[in-house]
Amino acid sequence: MLGGESKERAIHSSKLLYLLLITSISLNLYSSSSSLLLFLLPFGSAPEPWWTNPTSIEAEAVAAVRCSGHGRAYVDGIYVGGVPVCECNTCYGSADCSELSPDCPADADSGDPMFLEPYWMREAASSAVVLAGWHRMSYRMNNDAAAISAELVKQIRRLHSAVGNAITDGRFILFGAGSTQLLNAAVHALSPDDPSSPPANVLASVPYYPVYEMGTTFFNDRENRWGGTTSTWANKSDSSAAGEFIEFVTSPNNPDGHLKQPVLNVSSVITDHAYFWPHFTEIPAPGDEDLMVFTLSKLSGHAGSRFGWALVKDKKVYDKMSKYIQLSMFSVSRDTQLRALKLIKVIVEGSKVGGKDIFEFGYSTMNDRWRRLNDVVSKSNRFSLQSLSPQFCTYFQTIRDPSPAYAWLKCEREEDKDCEAALKAEGIISRRGATYNTDDRYTRLSLIKTQDDFEQLLQHMVALVSKESGPQVI
Amino acid sequence: MLGGESKERAIHSSKLLYLLLITSISLNLYSSSSSLLLFLLPFGSAPEPWWTNPTSIEAEAVAAVRCSGHGRAYVDGIYVGGVPVCECNTCYGSADCSELSPDCPADADSGDPMFLEPYWMREAASSAVVLAGWHRMSYRMNNDAAAISAELVKQIRRLHSAVGNAITDGRFILFGAGSTQLLNAAVHALSPDDPSSPPANVLASVPYYPVYEMGTTFFNDRENRWGGTTSTWANKSDSSAAGEFIEFVTSPNNPDGHLKQPVLNVSSVITDHAYFWPHFTEIPAPGDEDLMVFTLSKLSGHAGSRFGWALVKDKKVYDKMSKYIQLSMFSVSRDTQLRALKLIKVIVEGSKVGGKDIFEFGYSTMNDRWRRLNDVVSKSNRFSLQSLSPQFCTYFQTIRDPSPAYAWLKCEREEDKDCEAALKAEGIISRRGATYNTDDRYTRLSLIKTQDDFEQLLQHMVALVSKESGPQVI
Repeated sequence: MLGGESKERAIHSSKLLYLLLITSISLNLYSSSSSLLLFLLPFGSAPEPWWTNPTSIEAEAVAAVRCSGHGRAYVDGIYVGGVPVCECNTCYGSADCSELSPDCPADADSGDPMFLEPYWMREAASSAVVLAGWHRMSYRMNNDAAAISAELVKQIRRLHSAVGNAITDGRFILFGAGSTQLLNAAVHALSPDDPSSPPANVLASVPYYPVYEMGTTFFNDRENRWGGTTSTWANKSDSSAAGEFIEFVTSPNNPDGHLKQPVLNVSSVITDHAYFWPHFTEIPAPGDEDLMVFTLSKLSGHAGSRFGWALVKDKKVYDKMSKYIQLSMFSVSRDTQLRALKLIKVIVEGSKVGGKDIFEFGYSTMNDRWRRLNDVVSKSNRFSLQSLSPQFCTYFQTIRDPSPAYAWLKCEREEDKDCEAALKAEGIISRRGATYNTDDRYTRLSLIKTQDDFEQLLQHMVALVSKESGPQVI
Repeated sequence: MLGGESKERAIHSSKLLYLLLITSISLNLYSSSSSLLLFLLPFGSAPEPWWTNPTSIEAEAVAAVRCSGHGRAYVDGIYVGGVPVCECNTCYGSADCSELSPDCPADADSGDPMFLEPYWMREAASSAVVLAGWHRMSYRMNNDAAAISAELVKQIRRLHSAVGNAITDGRFILFGAGSTQLLNAAVHALSPDDPSSPPANVLASVPYYPVYEMGTTFFNDRENRWGGTTSTWANKSDSSAAGEFIEFVTSPNNPDGHLKQPVLNVSSVITDHAYFWPHFTEIPAPGDEDLMVFTLSKLSGHAGSRFGWALVKDKKVYDKMSKYIQLSMFSVSRDTQLRALKLIKVIVEGSKVGGKDIFEFGYSTMNDRWRRLNDVVSKSNRFSLQSLSPQFCTYFQTIRDPSPAYAWLKCEREEDKDCEAALKAEGIISRRGATYNTDDRYTRLSLIKTQDDFEQLLQHMVALVSKESGPQVI
């Protein structure tokens, strides 16, 4: 047992350890006030957590599982012998994800926004959320029938104001399970109420995100139908007999990254602003359209959380969209709303703070990828990329180079009519032009997946371009 | 050899050096999750939580806010002066929910399953969940395209096996945002694929849950239409020209609590087993229907989480339902799936364990409420309740008294044609018979809300029944 003096010294030493640790951490890493609080705890009178301890210990143990930087374990993953198994990035295997499979194709297919995962690992302390067992069990919230969090609405308005990408004044805010659901709700809400009216024609401009057409066709609503592309209608001298039109505008566009405007002069436009964040595009001015849809997926990278919101000017449209969400699933999960609140708070508080800004992180990652891919493709006569130029961005207050979410690759050779197949033959998985209702001479490469996915894509592209005139080209 | 004191000092010094070393290393490595582990090393093999601490401290501080047992504070609630505000139960007010409003009506309207909240407060330590900032950001799960947790599927199968209320062998399991979405998906999936077929007629037996009709009518799918009540069709000698039929069967039924079977001999039946848990009914045998729908809401009380599942026999129906969910919202939020996993694990592990069993808790609460309400109503000539008798339950392995989720109250007096209005005049809010497409001589009283709600209902009923023959009756 320690004597009095040594005990004093020991206590002093351990206090010193804590102080050094918190000084260092708070200076370099986790500067949020709440993370500071935790290290000061041993000196204060704040009660020790108790009922959160089992889940905290579990979460931290799982986070500490080593997956070689090529994977991660999850608390709801598969456990073998009481230990959670690493879920490895594409092409990586073995128990700790350390082995790269030699002949594995580069998968640039899906728009899975995993490029932001490292940001959230860095923001571990500020972004974690505890859900108490009794957290918001009710159908209702804030003691009224509203099923959406007033705090989350407030943070979303703050977010748009901080980023400058949408006007929220005079708009109703509506939540949905990802933007997908809100897009369906919008189509339904903008369709005619009168059963004697012909169904509305739902349209988009080529190349367009295929889910617009798939959803409209699948749900088979009597009040609307898929009407095809805007170009079909733009050339018709009189289309008034065809009924109402609903035009989807994706800005920036998926797949090509261009900022877009409606093509037809129609009353009902749904503006899909999923990618309208400084990660992917300049922000020339705040969005001011009648019906704008945003999603957490492409803002924070949390595709798995299924959270989106719509900003709606017209009360009648908002009410019909609300009823759609209500009869679809009553409301968005409170668990998701709580998490979205925490994540958006971190984003708002970190915006424009050096080293904390998710948009700085997102932009520099995406711009780096675009630049490196461009360097490779610019040496090729066989392939070309969409043309994007540096533009002034009101968020960064400077002219910024492009950083699109997707490369829209064109095969230039006469014989490469199927660009997706041409890449696939060389071990690159992409998404063919026909998916976006356009020429298969184009194919989409996703640039927003993990760093591993991107590096594999780049390696395969280097090898492919090298073949054009021998390995010395690159 | 070092003496005791010096040894302690040496350990502290070396810990200090080690700490400085890793702190400096961490500056270079902090963006990878495995580097987080480095901080834990100096504290030995049983690391103390650190990145979960800020959220744990916040959650525990909010849980410690005193709301007099008539409310609770939430981390995403409204804060005044940095302190979260109590959200009080119906009729309770003031900062700490201690004041009962004198002339407040008893609200027995909604089916908000708050009666289970005390169970989860008791199970605080086992039921809390931490969501790391980077938890399951991807669209995919378990490294394949499946967007549903394999662990959660496993636990749901264990749950049904422990409770004995559904056969899961040879069934596909599908997740949805509450049972509402799965019911819509089921209607769509059971409708004809062939556009030349007449739309399917969607039916239910009186009294029925109104959302079946509201959803079918609102979504206005070309492949189906609301066909009315089963009794309309049962008497028709030949209905083959009318096309296909889809019959909703709610068992036990909402509002009257009776176990039900299909009325028509049709091929497509959707069995809504929302209330088929030992809280509310005896379990005579496991459900074995072709398409069964369950919801977390009425199992654990987490209505706000929006989580349900379907057990589907037919692969084609399952596939079409899956596509419906996918095009509606891609998949169920991973945040919700993680929470559902934790809650269902607690339920499975506690089942049939004295003091831990949620069904024991749920049954004793509901049975107590039913018994007390029955005692009052049995003294009345003006009102009557549905007749439910004690039945053998395979879960409790004994004959159990009734414990329905709702009282289906009938006004017996000739002049009380509008039972809902009769109660409302005496300060009781209920849900009128017409809502369930039946006689307004009936009205529904919800028994599953908070204990406060139930006590207020009972007090008002006592007062109302007392009026029949003077205050001495009760």
